[in-house]
Amino acid sequence: MPLPAQKVLVTGSSGLIGSMLIRSLADRYGFSGLDLARKAIAPDVPTLTVDASKGVNAILPAFKGVDAVVHLAADVRQDAPWDSVLPNNLVLTHNVWEACRISGVSRIVFASSNHAVGMFENDDPYRRIVKGEYGGLDAAKVKKVDHTVPVRPDGDYGISKAYGEAVGRYYFEQHGIEAACLRIGTVNPHNSPARSVRHFATWCSHRDLAQLVDKCLSAPKLGFEIFYGVSDNKWRFWDIKHAAQSIGFKPVDNAESYR
Amino acid sequence: MPLPAQKVLVTGSSGLIGSMLIRSLADRYGFSGLDLARKAIAPDVPTLTVDASKGVNAILPAFKGVDAVVHLAADVRQDAPWDSVLPNNLVLTHNVWEACRISGVSRIVFASSNHAVGMFENDDPYRRIVKGEYGGLDAAKVKKVDHTVPVRPDGDYGISKAYGEAVGRYYFEQHGIEAACLRIGTVNPHNSPARSVRHFATWCSHRDLAQLVDKCLSAPKLGFEIFYGVSDNKWRFWDIKHAAQSIGFKPVDNAESYR
Repeated sequence: MPLPAQKVLVTGSSGLIGSMLIRSLADRYGFSGLDLARKAIAPDVPTLTVDASKGVNAILPAFKGVDAVVHLAADVRQDAPWDSVLPNNLVLTHNVWEACRISGVSRIVFASSNHAVGMFENDDPYRRIVKGEYGGLDAAKVKKVDHTVPVRPDGDYGISKAYGEAVGRYYFEQHGIEAACLRIGTVNPHNSPARSVRHFATWCSHRDLAQLVDKCLSAPKLGFEIFYGVSDNKWRFWDIKHAAQSIGFKPVDNAESYR
Repeated sequence: MPLPAQKVLVTGSSGLIGSMLIRSLADRYGFSGLDLARKAIAPDVPTLTVDASKGVNAILPAFKGVDAVVHLAADVRQDAPWDSVLPNNLVLTHNVWEACRISGVSRIVFASSNHAVGMFENDDPYRRIVKGEYGGLDAAKVKKVDHTVPVRPDGDYGISKAYGEAVGRYYFEQHGIEAACLRIGTVNPHNSPARSVRHFATWCSHRDLAQLVDKCLSAPKLGFEIFYGVSDNKWRFWDIKHAAQSIGFKPVDNAESYR
């Protein structure tokens, strides 16, 4: 399906997800990047290298003429210490939404995280599933954690993602900037769930995540939404129906193929 | 009812609510305070004057031997600018929970705010109620905004309160620190709803708020809860049933007395 040439800025463009998305969707969008530095895996797109936590003015040039932003830049460690979460996740995320507001960007796809609701994994049956203790469980009947549950962050990182979702909701309701907050599961460089039993539930393949981001960027109307970024794994316990119904997300991978 | 002498630290002890609470509940708890400075209305309790946004170590002395904390310190302006919200609401709130964790404080009563869900006031019937357009509305049938709704902050201040609630949830689930997040309505120095039509819905009298805080502090078991701090106003649109059922909150005032 041909699209109007849409200019999309990716923050954290040199990271694992940023570089993967830009390469996967290069024929669909005109990408540019924003990152602290250009790493070896950085894609070959125009990139502003700046510390986006330092202020809104420093990043504004990257937002000029942009139609949508995919906001990935953050300290991505689930156990990131507060001293890093504060500038790199809280302040930086505020700056990105402000830059969008000032620059007239009308849509943001935000890398939230499953860790915004990570404490569900302390409760059965999720606690057992992430340990691979499937005995007596019917995968099809596992109640899914969906976009309506209260946030249950499992650390400062998860808190920062819940914060970003609240920021997104405010900017949508006050300023009309549409946002999809993606509670992304496990995305790894080897693109496989095989190295951890938990990942058989939480894995999101590169192509499924690329599809989800693509559908968020190309949906005629988005509003404010919270979606889970996860492949259609047998032991998945996050809801994908809401994304299917809202924007037609249909993941093609299932971690069970890797057993 | 006699209580075990409970030592309670109030952050923001010199402010409107802090000083009111300490004076109202002086015979129930042994209070101490923490604030930037002692204002004229400050109550006569031991008070550490320090900028609590500057770091955890600076405030730790105030948490020593304390049983519970009432955390009110913040930039309390609904339209507080980001440059103030960042240190005074986000960082400071992080510091207070960290200080509780380090010091073994087991319960926090947090002044969240109705502004964490302020955007409901853009929707009918709340939009009409806050403007006093009651025509055709049955007050008793107005659907109440309760603790299960998604956050809908109406600014950086409201976002910071949603953030504080997420922090509280994490520290409860991870560290067992009980927390009541109070989405407080309108508390003013003249202790009356009479100066704004909105306040006939949102007013919380001093004695009703003192009762709510008292019940949060004295409940045998609290867990993690979100309660609305509002008097039993005829046009109230925030839920108080959940606080009634959980801790026996029973507000005695009704803004209609001021018509």
